Amino acid sequence: MKFNGKEYKNFVSAFDESNLFTHFAPRKTPTFIPRGKSKVKTLDEVIEILNDGDVISYPHYYRTGDRGLEAVVKKLREHGKRNIVLYGNAIFDHTDPWLYEAFKDGIITGIYGNIYRAMGNHLVAGDLLPWVGVGLSHGNRVRKLQVGEVHVKLAFLPVPMADIHGNANGVMGNPDEYCGPLGLATADAEYADYTCLLAGTVSEETLIPAEITMELTDFVVPMEKPGLSEGIGSGTLDFEKIRSNKFNAQIAENVTNIMKAAGVMKDGFAFQVGSGAGLIVLDNIRQYLKENNITANFAIGGITSMHVEMLEEGTLRHIFHGQLFEPSEKVIKSLLMNPFHIPISTGFYASIANKECAVNMLDVAVLSALEVDRDFNVNTVCASGRIIGGIGGGQDVAAGADLTIMFVPLATGKDGKGFPKIVEKVYTRTTPGEVIDVVVTEDYVCVNPKSRSSYKEAILENGKKYGLNIISMDELLAKSKEKAESFGVIPKPKPTTDEVVHVIEWRDGTLLDTIKRAMPK
Amino acid sequence: MKFNGKEYKNFVSAFDESNLFTHFAPRKTPTFIPRGKSKVKTLDEVIEILNDGDVISYPHYYRTGDRGLEAVVKKLREHGKRNIVLYGNAIFDHTDPWLYEAFKDGIITGIYGNIYRAMGNHLVAGDLLPWVGVGLSHGNRVRKLQVGEVHVKLAFLPVPMADIHGNANGVMGNPDEYCGPLGLATADAEYADYTCLLAGTVSEETLIPAEITMELTDFVVPMEKPGLSEGIGSGTLDFEKIRSNKFNAQIAENVTNIMKAAGVMKDGFAFQVGSGAGLIVLDNIRQYLKENNITANFAIGGITSMHVEMLEEGTLRHIFHGQLFEPSEKVIKSLLMNPFHIPISTGFYASIANKECAVNMLDVAVLSALEVDRDFNVNTVCASGRIIGGIGGGQDVAAGADLTIMFVPLATGKDGKGFPKIVEKVYTRTTPGEVIDVVVTEDYVCVNPKSRSSYKEAILENGKKYGLNIISMDELLAKSKEKAESFGVIPKPKPTTDEVVHVIEWRDGTLLDTIKRAMPK
Repeated sequence: MKFNGKEYKNFVSAFDESNLFTHFAPRKTPTFIPRGKSKVKTLDEVIEILNDGDVISYPHYYRTGDRGLEAVVKKLREHGKRNIVLYGNAIFDHTDPWLYEAFKDGIITGIYGNIYRAMGNHLVAGDLLPWVGVGLSHGNRVRKLQVGEVHVKLAFLPVPMADIHGNANGVMGNPDEYCGPLGLATADAEYADYTCLLAGTVSEETLIPAEITMELTDFVVPMEKPGLSEGIGSGTLDFEKIRSNKFNAQIAENVTNIMKAAGVMKDGFAFQVGSGAGLIVLDNIRQYLKENNITANFAIGGITSMHVEMLEEGTLRHIFHGQLFEPSEKVIKSLLMNPFHIPISTGFYASIANKECAVNMLDVAVLSALEVDRDFNVNTVCASGRIIGGIGGGQDVAAGADLTIMFVPLATGKDGKGFPKIVEKVYTRTTPGEVIDVVVTEDYVCVNPKSRSSYKEAILENGKKYGLNIISMDELLAKSKEKAESFGVIPKPKPTTDEVVHVIEWRDGTLLDTIKRAMPK
Repeated sequence: MKFNGKEYKNFVSAFDESNLFTHFAPRKTPTFIPRGKSKVKTLDEVIEILNDGDVISYPHYYRTGDRGLEAVVKKLREHGKRNIVLYGNAIFDHTDPWLYEAFKDGIITGIYGNIYRAMGNHLVAGDLLPWVGVGLSHGNRVRKLQVGEVHVKLAFLPVPMADIHGNANGVMGNPDEYCGPLGLATADAEYADYTCLLAGTVSEETLIPAEITMELTDFVVPMEKPGLSEGIGSGTLDFEKIRSNKFNAQIAENVTNIMKAAGVMKDGFAFQVGSGAGLIVLDNIRQYLKENNITANFAIGGITSMHVEMLEEGTLRHIFHGQLFEPSEKVIKSLLMNPFHIPISTGFYASIANKECAVNMLDVAVLSALEVDRDFNVNTVCASGRIIGGIGGGQDVAAGADLTIMFVPLATGKDGKGFPKIVEKVYTRTTPGEVIDVVVTEDYVCVNPKSRSSYKEAILENGKKYGLNIISMDELLAKSKEKAESFGVIPKPKPTTDEVVHVIEWRDGTLLDTIKRAMPK
């Protein structure tokens, strides 16, 4: 099938090697000999290098605090640009309404990446057609740039500080603009024909350390507040609030016990836990390591103060930091000053076009889902026809980690309706079941019989000893339905047309699933 | 003219932009999906991927302490490989006699890079013909890989420590194998089809920090002592010995006064000084900064304990470390632990295929020469038909630094013969005069009238005040001849045939000069 001009192959299996490329994209060389000249330009000058139909890219690390993309889109409009495609990553509500307006007016005609909420509603309603949304994992987004599936003409990178030569980092300049690691945009800077920094502060003096270097930068545009750190904080880091949530507490207890039963917390292990319940899991890991005098080798993903404390107290030897979740002084200072707290590129983290990536070093990862089905397929994106979540690093981490633990509520209820979260078939498959080892709900644990985790047998063997209530998928399905019914009627899926409005790519670029257009009312 | 199959364009000028490429070389992607598998192989297995005529690459950071290259060449012989070309960087005397023997036997048929002494004698004698030696600057060596002028099939990187996935650094493992930054081989790992680490210690656990990462590595070969740090120390770091040399002391005095006259030592400036007299210059800079409460932004090139002390005391804010010159615990520990002591790749340092490089940020650089001519052309490679020095970063730094100070003895004498070092025409031009701002000898200073340095006028204006004896090139030529004659007879140049045995490339790949074959006796 063909979407947005790309002929898609269907997903076969998680590690199918028949879709590999032979060469990376041929990157454009500079058309000048570098001589230390200032690269400072106005945004107007930079926009003029774009032709109608070109692809621009923009990273999402400022999350809802981003301000640079709006400035770029405004300039595209002022300069009369048409049919520009945005190679994004995650589109949040701060883009409402100006991004959709640019779409309606033909300035933007395509958006790659995970599209949330307001813009997501437009997507599902078919308002973006003929453009079909493209859901990408972090690793896949980099891979596409590396192998040239998407060719970006001009990459924009908002940064708190840069120098006139194009060196930049996310940990200097004005503190209210700190964005932490720039690794989400490293591949953009490498593979785009032109790279433009949007910098809150511009220094004449060479900026050191630089995470994006002058080797890759063409233009430096001074911009007041290209992004605000405050948009990065997600609220899910309030530890007391997280602990007081009964679901979180139960999940964390189960997850921790799975890890104990597995025996995965041993000297030199590596882990990734998410936010929410994941943060309680992290606290539990920390206690376990302290009590047993164990040191973890590294943690990755969603780095918080607690990770920094673990690094400093010695329960954790290294932090790989790919994306800031907590823009606190403690985390930023550690990232700048601690040689074992290391910013990483998203390609290093998760791209399968590299000869190895960090997700494959993970002994254990804890991820969350909207729903899980009989075949352990996971849906993190779309519930009841509404786009709620994205893919993020989920596909990559699930495929890479030796032990992937997926947590999900058994069922939820609202307004006299019940919603089972363990279902016969997920609404949209965003991660294939073959890479999920264990599914955890508040009360139950289900081990995937097809799991290839080296910890599978230990969990099955020791589970009872650690208080795990391990049941089969048949049982879990029944329990989920039962609980949903206790909340009320289980509604039928909302009707759709046959038109595809969104594709979910597997991390190798194959077509994992689609989302259909909501039936017009 | 064509050498080694490459059609050369003649050098036009230092910043001629008519030789630029449009695209970087299309790098080969891996032919597998990475899954965390061990990459440990034997050298025998790795050698088998080579076909006759392939290019291998090898870095020189272990200098005379290297042991890996000999092991590789031995295996090439054992496996019956023929016509292998070595993309080297600097070939020292430790390769004698096994490298030339491999050449004679047709195992190796070509060597890129600067070839010293024993192997250099073979080169000048024509023993390597039809292969013509290729002298490369550090930046040019990277540029050739980037744009595909040379395509490497298999890159070897000796490292003290790696993990089974191919992460490596030069600052862990056995201390007697520390090699410091691996930046000289970064481009090799990026652009070679295959990258093979030769590792003194191999860890199961993910090695962090990694300077060469698993993203680029195909094979990890455990090897006892792939290199010894002791070969890196050059003896020119003995500060008392350097100071007691009258030439060094005089040169350093003049250089420091030039810098004072220029006014280049101001807050936030950047500098590179070499070893030998350069180390006294560094000490002088340090005193000046202390006395005047000035902080330099960064230093680069030939990093020593004194740089580390300056970083720690605050006279220097950052160190860019591209190549280890002093394998001391102090330097290595600082490189590992100090976040402002940063390992850099040679491409970041000096490649003009990048959109900017660090040599262009230098306010002042101090370099040394074998001889300088009327047009300020410099020769660092060949004296009296013998290969003595290489090009190193010299071309790049001279072209990049705002103020390039070149020092050279006025003349030398030996066995009743005199050798002027300021000559009508250099034996071989290794750096064009247009990028040399000031030439310094023991007693005299000569400013290039064609210098474009922003400090030129200040030096001419303030020189006398700082005790500089500034004379014209005509005068300097006469003084040099006079001094040479005071040592004895000035010998005529040794006769050569018309055959070219060595080309000197300018950093953009054009033909700067050639060396002819010595007339057979």
